[in-house]
Amino acid sequence: MAEILHKITIAAPAATVYTALTEQRGLAGWWTEKVQAEPRIGAVCRFRFDGDTGPDMDVVELEGNKRVRWRCVAHSNDPKHEWLGTEVFFDLDPQSAATILRFSHRGWLEGSDFLRYCSLKWATYLIGLKRLLEAGEGTPYPRDIKI
Amino acid sequence: MAEILHKITIAAPAATVYTALTEQRGLAGWWTEKVQAEPRIGAVCRFRFDGDTGPDMDVVELEGNKRVRWRCVAHSNDPKHEWLGTEVFFDLDPQSAATILRFSHRGWLEGSDFLRYCSLKWATYLIGLKRLLEAGEGTPYPRDIKI
Repeated sequence: MAEILHKITIAAPAATVYTALTEQRGLAGWWTEKVQAEPRIGAVCRFRFDGDTGPDMDVVELEGNKRVRWRCVAHSNDPKHEWLGTEVFFDLDPQSAATILRFSHRGWLEGSDFLRYCSLKWATYLIGLKRLLEAGEGTPYPRDIKI
Repeated sequence: MAEILHKITIAAPAATVYTALTEQRGLAGWWTEKVQAEPRIGAVCRFRFDGDTGPDMDVVELEGNKRVRWRCVAHSNDPKHEWLGTEVFFDLDPQSAATILRFSHRGWLEGSDFLRYCSLKWATYLIGLKRLLEAGEGTPYPRDIKI
């Protein structure tokens, strides 16, 4: 098993970060503008990118202002996609004037080339999330940082 | 053992990327301006950041335009620093109009909070390297992207 681990500090309250990770409008501000999402356990959120491909993420855990956990249940009509069954965790740790966000994408079968790509790409989106909440402008698809 | 894996595509020849990863002036353009380095196996390169702390990296492998490999032999006068003994690999894969760079930071004892920080921070420096070689401007310390 392999995993992607990141940490970023965002100068915003945990409740603000949590909203950006759970509400459709929040997610559209930093990951992809093509999103259908709702902040409810059991909801399957659709995230789309080039060619209308992308993952369907089942919201398997929600702990208000603390944790969001998704499980990839479908991706691009590909029954062997590397994301299938992987899980994404966002863990929020409130500080005095900021929130530490620990991001984990776990359950990869191996440290593949696609994991490498996704590791750097997730980093660009998390930097975009920080910029969205601190300065009002993220870099969601299709305005994402190309790598 | 844990590791950081990234991949980025840079619109530049492998020889140009290799120079930026081995020559002092190249490294100063994307990682840190406080650097003493030479492109020679056995050289110990000094990279410094806030408070004049930072790693000493032994150049353990150089394969022209293909691979650079460092081993951390000292860090901030801390005999228990998490980087000690870890290795950083830059593997270059030339394409028709670009170079794929695979970055690996291997040998971490665990997926610690500092690994999470470094994973995202390496991503910012690699994006800076891409920008340096494609547009002429990187984001080396102290002009680095704060996370």
